[in-house]
Amino acid sequence: MPHLGPLRCRTWAALLGQLLRPPRTVCNRAVGCHSQVAKAVLTSEQLKPHQQKPNFIIKVPKEMLTEKYEDNFGLMYDLEDQGGELLSLRYDLTVPFARYLAMNKLKRMKRYQVGKVWRRESPAIVQGRYREFCQCDFDIAGEFDPMIPDAECLRIMCEILSGLQLGDFLIKVNDRRVVDGMFAVCGVPESKFRTICSSMDKLDKMSWEDVRLEMVAGKGLAPEVADRIGDYVQCHGGISLVEELFKDPRLSQSQLALQGLGDLKLLFEYLRLFGIADKISLDLSLARGLDYYTGVIYEAVLLESPAQAGKETLNVGSVAAGGRYDRLVAQFDPKGHSVPCVGLSIGVERIFYLVEQKMKISCEKVRTTETQVFVATPQKNFLQERLKIIAQLWDAGIKAEMLYKNNPKLLTQLHYCEKEDIPLMVIIGEQEQNEGVVKLRSVASREEVTVNRESLVAEIQKRLSES
Amino acid sequence: MPHLGPLRCRTWAALLGQLLRPPRTVCNRAVGCHSQVAKAVLTSEQLKPHQQKPNFIIKVPKEMLTEKYEDNFGLMYDLEDQGGELLSLRYDLTVPFARYLAMNKLKRMKRYQVGKVWRRESPAIVQGRYREFCQCDFDIAGEFDPMIPDAECLRIMCEILSGLQLGDFLIKVNDRRVVDGMFAVCGVPESKFRTICSSMDKLDKMSWEDVRLEMVAGKGLAPEVADRIGDYVQCHGGISLVEELFKDPRLSQSQLALQGLGDLKLLFEYLRLFGIADKISLDLSLARGLDYYTGVIYEAVLLESPAQAGKETLNVGSVAAGGRYDRLVAQFDPKGHSVPCVGLSIGVERIFYLVEQKMKISCEKVRTTETQVFVATPQKNFLQERLKIIAQLWDAGIKAEMLYKNNPKLLTQLHYCEKEDIPLMVIIGEQEQNEGVVKLRSVASREEVTVNRESLVAEIQKRLSES
Repeated sequence: MPHLGPLRCRTWAALLGQLLRPPRTVCNRAVGCHSQVAKAVLTSEQLKPHQQKPNFIIKVPKEMLTEKYEDNFGLMYDLEDQGGELLSLRYDLTVPFARYLAMNKLKRMKRYQVGKVWRRESPAIVQGRYREFCQCDFDIAGEFDPMIPDAECLRIMCEILSGLQLGDFLIKVNDRRVVDGMFAVCGVPESKFRTICSSMDKLDKMSWEDVRLEMVAGKGLAPEVADRIGDYVQCHGGISLVEELFKDPRLSQSQLALQGLGDLKLLFEYLRLFGIADKISLDLSLARGLDYYTGVIYEAVLLESPAQAGKETLNVGSVAAGGRYDRLVAQFDPKGHSVPCVGLSIGVERIFYLVEQKMKISCEKVRTTETQVFVATPQKNFLQERLKIIAQLWDAGIKAEMLYKNNPKLLTQLHYCEKEDIPLMVIIGEQEQNEGVVKLRSVASREEVTVNRESLVAEIQKRLSES
Repeated sequence: MPHLGPLRCRTWAALLGQLLRPPRTVCNRAVGCHSQVAKAVLTSEQLKPHQQKPNFIIKVPKEMLTEKYEDNFGLMYDLEDQGGELLSLRYDLTVPFARYLAMNKLKRMKRYQVGKVWRRESPAIVQGRYREFCQCDFDIAGEFDPMIPDAECLRIMCEILSGLQLGDFLIKVNDRRVVDGMFAVCGVPESKFRTICSSMDKLDKMSWEDVRLEMVAGKGLAPEVADRIGDYVQCHGGISLVEELFKDPRLSQSQLALQGLGDLKLLFEYLRLFGIADKISLDLSLARGLDYYTGVIYEAVLLESPAQAGKETLNVGSVAAGGRYDRLVAQFDPKGHSVPCVGLSIGVERIFYLVEQKMKISCEKVRTTETQVFVATPQKNFLQERLKIIAQLWDAGIKAEMLYKNNPKLLTQLHYCEKEDIPLMVIIGEQEQNEGVVKLRSVASREEVTVNRESLVAEIQKRLSES
């Protein structure tokens, strides 16, 4: 465990800037919203002196939330505030973000947010589903020219997934209007759109045959309608598939589908310019369960799980997903003003789980601390000197630790450094004390040199910058 | 808002390391605790192959939590899980940390944690108190030689408060045993310790006369007992006060007080070696409300609020506090095994509020994004080139943005950069396009130079490293 080291002004200014910068995080609160904090997080645009104090509505009626999540209503954690009003723990970060925009009358915002969300599930039943888990969201809100923010969201998704080195991945894209248009031209009755959509959503876990059976036998869809859907949901490809679908005699009957295809075409052009077109595949089977999406939708899947080479098989589903939701903010706005949004969510626990598996397989060791230097002594009664030396290192911003013992054994200290992979050791004993020096030991090579006390910090900094 | 930039492997490895390293954060969960995640956060010590899978107890009975917070019981948010079992949102980070140690049979751990806590208060009533707020905790758990971890906690508190540049501060320290010993020798009946303690805790907001009145008239303390307390609570000073109190004829009657004083003496020695003794003052009026403290207690106060020079007066109380709690873990352990702990909590909202006030007074402008380069065009139909250039910058890890418009006006783009304090602009138009160059503009100086497309990234990196 590293010591914080001397927190230099610049570092803290940066940290504070960081904390103050995407501060919307602070306000998308599970339990109400306090105007004091909300004030602190207004964008600079809002701080114009002529502007009135925003009129905050602290609570969102439960009824509104249940509407957003419909089917998942039972999964919300309810709690009562002191006035007996019913509140809920947030179910995701998207709806609170939309609410925040509406409440603060913000017309544009770009922000990321990492936070906990809660679902009232039985944690043991569904593997990989927790009652409390962490989501990382990125969203772009505002009225912009078509598909530029959408393409940026996909670019960000690619950067994150590439950076995490989880192996090869693919982002499936589709458009809600294409899904609805496809259902319409295939002959799905409008009343069945939702339920057929949710069957289709199972195609990543079930075969088409099983999904078809569910549609026909379970949900009463005419077999020929199911077969028409079947033709489409097996389509996937790049911009050439978009072109083909434009010419599809059936699908091109739907104005809605054509709008979606038009945007997808533009999207693929931008993805090409962003250098990520090869990572994206139009997949007509992608539906995305949530009701609030209105345009492009996407979902990232790993093509080869890190465990495939090993013993265990992993099925973690999608690791990131998102889409465009243009009408959600309007639902929170008293006047119904809309703010178009597009965004993405990353499943932090799922990714952690994958990274963990990967490390297990590769037997990679992860340091649990960032300690750079350990301050040791081979003799008794050197606590005072160790404290002085460690304070000197901390003052210089070096991550240093020592054992919290008056008289630790040298061997214990050596073993600790090896176990914790600490690169350097400073050793002070009677002889060094008398000569005004210390020993600087490289833990890996076991080489020791004698260094003057005054030049210790500089020598350590030199070694650390070289490594 | 900065773009994430290309997330280079090293950066992400570091980020992941960061996320995996103090991962206890993940597990001190408000709502239950999932073994899958808990497994991911075991310390390396626990991952020894011979060790059995830890036997997790997922829920902590509400009754246990109510016991910990006694008086504040009504402030907890309750919720029910699917089995109808009563759960609560966490009230602080200390009790969940103690519980985590006990559940995982951890004998030592050093960790920091930043997280939300919830209190079921009416947010409007008490200024500066929120129903949901953020705490930042640091704790050292384990059996160690006396006062070494305690001194490190105080050192960390000093580093953080100095680094935040909130102005001059003082950390008041005391010891619970000194408080209890003092009450005993002054003649406070044991049944009144708690309530007299809570009166004493008000000395930072009330005068001694008012507190005395509360003790005598309100709580039935004999006036001469109150006066004896009065003599002590006005004492504050450094190590010399500790020495004096050792010789105090009344206080030295209490073995408990002498133990506390012995530890305080050692603490002051270590604080001197750590170079922070001038920031710490023994203050016999410090009591700390929470019941779980057993030894040294401390609380940081600002000596001059940032607003003193300005119009508003601020009263934010303490900005950080903590102490030693040696018996809390045992209360969660089925066998009652104890793990001594010492730690601190920082009030993030209070500090934000102060920083905000400070910036308001100094008219300091804080950038709301980290954008380094803005990609602009003075002409129509340059979206494709802008997208290509921005992708090139992102690839190089440069934080770049552009307007999400097909054909933005140059003036709009210039104004945006000035407003957002973006240092550099890349401008591409027809002439530049034809010549294979771009213009690189310094937003502050308005100077423009022509740069070859191939050397753009290098030129920007050079400029950024110089600034």
